[in-house]
Amino acid sequence: MTRRARVLRLPTAGPQDTVPLAQAIDRGEIDPATIVAIVGKTEGNGCVNDFTRGYATLALKLLLAERLKCPMAEVEGRVAIVMSGGTEGGLSPHLLVFCRETATAAATGSRLAIGVGLTRSFKPEEIGRAPQIAATAEAVDSAMKDAGIASAGDVHFVQIKCPLLTKERIEEAERRGAGVATDDTYHSMALSRGASALGVALALGEIKDAPQAAVCRDWSLYSRVASTSAGVELLRNEIVVLGNAPGWAGDLLIDHDVMTDAIDAEAARRVLARLGGETVAVLAKAEASPTGEIRGRRHTMLDDSDIHSTRHARALVGGVLAGVIGDTLLYVSGGAEHQGPPGGGPVAIIAKV
Amino acid sequence: MTRRARVLRLPTAGPQDTVPLAQAIDRGEIDPATIVAIVGKTEGNGCVNDFTRGYATLALKLLLAERLKCPMAEVEGRVAIVMSGGTEGGLSPHLLVFCRETATAAATGSRLAIGVGLTRSFKPEEIGRAPQIAATAEAVDSAMKDAGIASAGDVHFVQIKCPLLTKERIEEAERRGAGVATDDTYHSMALSRGASALGVALALGEIKDAPQAAVCRDWSLYSRVASTSAGVELLRNEIVVLGNAPGWAGDLLIDHDVMTDAIDAEAARRVLARLGGETVAVLAKAEASPTGEIRGRRHTMLDDSDIHSTRHARALVGGVLAGVIGDTLLYVSGGAEHQGPPGGGPVAIIAKV
Amino acid sequence: MTRRARVLRLPTAGPQDTVPLAQAIDRGEIDPATIVAIVGKTEGNGCVNDFTRGYATLALKLLLAERLKCPMAEVEGRVAIVMSGGTEGGLSPHLLVFCRETATAAATGSRLAIGVGLTRSFKPEEIGRAPQIAATAEAVDSAMKDAGIASAGDVHFVQIKCPLLTKERIEEAERRGAGVATDDTYHSMALSRGASALGVALALGEIKDAPQAAVCRDWSLYSRVASTSAGVELLRNEIVVLGNAPGWAGDLLIDHDVMTDAIDAEAARRVLARLGGETVAVLAKAEASPTGEIRGRRHTMLDDSDIHSTRHARALVGGVLAGVIGDTLLYVSGGAEHQGPPGGGPVAIIAKV
Amino acid sequence: MTRRARVLRLPTAGPQDTVPLAQAIDRGEIDPATIVAIVGKTEGNGCVNDFTRGYATLALKLLLAERLKCPMAEVEGRVAIVMSGGTEGGLSPHLLVFCRETATAAATGSRLAIGVGLTRSFKPEEIGRAPQIAATAEAVDSAMKDAGIASAGDVHFVQIKCPLLTKERIEEAERRGAGVATDDTYHSMALSRGASALGVALALGEIKDAPQAAVCRDWSLYSRVASTSAGVELLRNEIVVLGNAPGWAGDLLIDHDVMTDAIDAEAARRVLARLGGETVAVLAKAEASPTGEIRGRRHTMLDDSDIHSTRHARALVGGVLAGVIGDTLLYVSGGAEHQGPPGGGPVAIIAKV
Repeated sequence: MTRRARVLRLPTAGPQDTVPLAQAIDRGEIDPATIVAIVGKTEGNGCVNDFTRGYATLALKLLLAERLKCPMAEVEGRVAIVMSGGTEGGLSPHLLVFCRETATAAATGSRLAIGVGLTRSFKPEEIGRAPQIAATAEAVDSAMKDAGIASAGDVHFVQIKCPLLTKERIEEAERRGAGVATDDTYHSMALSRGASALGVALALGEIKDAPQAAVCRDWSLYSRVASTSAGVELLRNEIVVLGNAPGWAGDLLIDHDVMTDAIDAEAARRVLARLGGETVAVLAKAEASPTGEIRGRRHTMLDDSDIHSTRHARALVGGVLAGVIGDTLLYVSGGAEHQGPPGGGPVAIIAKV
Repeated sequence: MTRRARVLRLPTAGPQDTVPLAQAIDRGEIDPATIVAIVGKTEGNGCVNDFTRGYATLALKLLLAERLKCPMAEVEGRVAIVMSGGTEGGLSPHLLVFCRETATAAATGSRLAIGVGLTRSFKPEEIGRAPQIAATAEAVDSAMKDAGIASAGDVHFVQIKCPLLTKERIEEAERRGAGVATDDTYHSMALSRGASALGVALALGEIKDAPQAAVCRDWSLYSRVASTSAGVELLRNEIVVLGNAPGWAGDLLIDHDVMTDAIDAEAARRVLARLGGETVAVLAKAEASPTGEIRGRRHTMLDDSDIHSTRHARALVGGVLAGVIGDTLLYVSGGAEHQGPPGGGPVAIIAKV
Repeated sequence: MTRRARVLRLPTAGPQDTVPLAQAIDRGEIDPATIVAIVGKTEGNGCVNDFTRGYATLALKLLLAERLKCPMAEVEGRVAIVMSGGTEGGLSPHLLVFCRETATAAATGSRLAIGVGLTRSFKPEEIGRAPQIAATAEAVDSAMKDAGIASAGDVHFVQIKCPLLTKERIEEAERRGAGVATDDTYHSMALSRGASALGVALALGEIKDAPQAAVCRDWSLYSRVASTSAGVELLRNEIVVLGNAPGWAGDLLIDHDVMTDAIDAEAARRVLARLGGETVAVLAKAEASPTGEIRGRRHTMLDDSDIHSTRHARALVGGVLAGVIGDTLLYVSGGAEHQGPPGGGPVAIIAKV
Repeated sequence: MTRRARVLRLPTAGPQDTVPLAQAIDRGEIDPATIVAIVGKTEGNGCVNDFTRGYATLALKLLLAERLKCPMAEVEGRVAIVMSGGTEGGLSPHLLVFCRETATAAATGSRLAIGVGLTRSFKPEEIGRAPQIAATAEAVDSAMKDAGIASAGDVHFVQIKCPLLTKERIEEAERRGAGVATDDTYHSMALSRGASALGVALALGEIKDAPQAAVCRDWSLYSRVASTSAGVELLRNEIVVLGNAPGWAGDLLIDHDVMTDAIDAEAARRVLARLGGETVAVLAKAEASPTGEIRGRRHTMLDDSDIHSTRHARALVGGVLAGVIGDTLLYVSGGAEHQGPPGGGPVAIIAKV
């Protein structure tokens, strides 16, 4: 059976706005049963008290439950929903809806392929540590198989939603005498993102070894395609692998490159040049250079106690990419631990060719 | 007598950091008596309670008074100091020091020319209104003459520092029975910037008429080279005109273009292509598109009650320009009323050729 | 038939947290069919881009639809839900659930009475103007009758949720040739709150006349019991009147006083002293003194471009009241136009006696 | 020789405002040579990028150098200047100027006494560790002797300005092979404040032992009178001890109590009741309760990524104290490590009796 990947990019008027998706379903443009993942940007602060992510997720679950005529709880098992908060600078809130359809036409050559994978649920004491790295690597493998992608070189973006530690989870572990990786719940987000990214790098052979001690310490180890995001609402890792593979029909291709720093517009230009065609989606990671400098110039992102550095970084990378792409409908996500080199990050583009 | 413009671009470690300028003076690189203007970016919020501008100005006056062996009050009469707050995204704090030196070599062709002009002090009721427009236009004329620039087409950037209304100034006017343009001191900054920019447009023949009623209302009227900044510490307009003119020696040239929107990277690319050579300074204006959209995509800058829209806009334009220039040492200033089209703004580059 | 007012004060763990209410229903503590209003504090910024209000409202509608076995759309008609964003300083997120039950015991003396009223939907051009004032006054009358409160002196708090202008609403009016009160959507919130508060003052005889021109201009006109809050999700005014009336059983009483400025702790102490008993709910309004001073001392709330003045004001009044009450579970809401004197506001307390 | 303490409380119009102090000197109200300390609140964010502290300090040094006819560098040796950023909520920017004058009248009973002490300069690796604790304890002893205070029970407030780690200082230590207490410059502020506060507690016998391992870990150890503030501009601890002692004339007395949590208004009421008289100055410390709760109610200060918890805490404690004192001219400073119990802090009042 030939499959076909479909990607809808839907601008939203707010976190609660599911009208564009409802209309696409109601017009028969897409069958809600084919949706495997929704990745989106919402206009919160992208930090601890960003409730736009949960709000958007709840609104999407409500819509999908209604259209799929299933309980809301069942939606979670069918669709991976990853909301990334923060549309600083010119970034424009939107949803990327990924569908896997049955193709009527035969596949010719490689086309955009989507695979999904899940780890088991993690115990609090496993988050940010070796078990999370190992399980993520395994699940990336499964997701590649699910997508029919045989070679690591054909994987161009791996979006992961991973858990974090809460006060309750830490206390539960401590009652069992198990120590957690950090007492700081905010820092646990970084550790979980970092361990997940190292799991991707391991699965794809980008690094040979991903020791637990390297998590958020040894920045020389990183994946060139991982994009990880921590959320309170799950205990396992949910993985969406995007690549090109035979057996997929349609007219979509994906490619990526690595921004070596936040202003590396060339990386995006290279991807555009290789892909050609009409841009359908742009996905990138951003972070403030941990050295406090970009190409030898001081930046002030890390010293700003009014605006979190991740907010500055998204605004900056969003500006760099918008200058290249000519569009602000960009999925730029913050917190790039082990996702690209320090201060840089992956940028992937899906195009209609 | 042949003149030569000198521009130093000095990274700073904080608003109080005058060490790089002191070193340039002490090394004999520049004679402090030749400094006519200092334009800089400081790391405040660029809004009402941004005290980094005043702090940097005080520190610079202290240094210059010491090196010029004159009272601090005299420094104000000799050097126009314009600090612009806000280094959001990747923008890097720095000073641009403009010097007018006597050249030993003869001038060949046009080179960077610097002219300075002043208006009289304005009464509170004149700010943001016809008298400020008219007086600014006259002073731009004077500054052009001071620079030896004969044609408006050779003016590429006009930096203006203009006054604003305070509670005290409004009350003083009211005691005299004179009404002011606005009771809102924050809004008076926009009106003063807008009236000043219209004065530039009038002086340079960019518009034929600049009626008072157009200030911050008729956005179709604007200058392509004005950059205006309101400050509490003065009651007149201080004007620095940058252009190219014969009679100036040296190896510096300036050129400019207009960004039609915040992501118009092409504008900067065109300037770079025309100028060639090594970039010495970049000056640009930024603002959130008042329509709420950039190229048809919604932005969230105007609805964000946590981060002021001017901060978002600087981060965005800074990212767009850094992606083109490959450097974050950029003077990007917010509040672009009548400075370029709505949502866009001028971008000027000084290069060593 | 004797009625009885019930008030539950339920701490929440986040905007989405309906567990405490669900448990109260499931334990049989309250019958969901008796709920007439839910007033709550959520941890957003309380300004334009505060999505925690909508998120909490959606979560509550979901729960109530489930427990009432009715469509979500029907919940809106049955329960007035007013979420106020902003828990600055020590304020603690919580819900106040107001129920009207049938009492088994006879009423003795006056007890807490709850009345609900609605206006018709307003056209955009009516918002912030005379029609909104007049319709609100009528609806307050209705709500008093609904509560069985005969005398204005027995009304102690009037909570109103009112509409605001959006870009779309303004454009719709303009297409019909109708001008709106303001083009500034943020300012429309103030006008709508102000007109609604003047409607309350008119209904209760606190002022004799409420001319349209006074809205957000003549601060000498105000209600001592109004608390109004603007939201995007409605076009009419929803009114909850709280007072004491015969015909109501139970052990709850309400009383109020007016804080003449933000630090007027005495006002709360007077209410506590008159009521006695155990405090069940505290409701108050807060705003930054528009003169820029509190008892002759300068405050910086209105000049802070990093934190909105309403956020400062809630933190401050929350601190003042917490110092008196000894609890941070306080409903302190910002934006007090014509709700108490300038810089001050009403404070109401419900106690079990 | 009899001494007399003089305390001026001067409202300021901004960080740069030295006019009130200049006028007090020029009117002959105080002799600038008698000023030993200036403690003030400025309207920055009180966090890393708060430049209002440095700005105010520079402006004060300029004034004092002029009036004392000495170089600016000498002012530092003569006057301890401690600026605390953050006037959230209703707090009003002001300076407290402490003078030690020669009294003409004889001293009768105990009166306000001011002592000053200094430690040696610390090496980077000593900051936040045992050497800083020990040296601070010694310097508090000296300052008590300087003030003529014999008993620890007569000490009511110890204000300390202490150093922090910068990137440069950490690197300098590392070049010598010396490890520092933390690589995180922001955290170094907490460690330095904490170690300094433990030094006070040790000197005053509030604790018997202050092991290095307790710094910012064992919150059961704390001083009831310490108020410490970290700044980048010094390498030693500067200590101002305030207490009551014989040998001092005048009409000022100081007393203090401990707020057990942020809303403990009773503590301030007790001090007021004991002192009587007219309040001349109020000094207090504030912090967000590290448990996330105040008297069992959840607060959101620690989860707010838009506003730093120290800003919330100052607004809250400022509100609580303003409700008691009836004035917003309060020195409320954030960051209360080992200064009062967790979530609480000392409050001291100076009154004219």
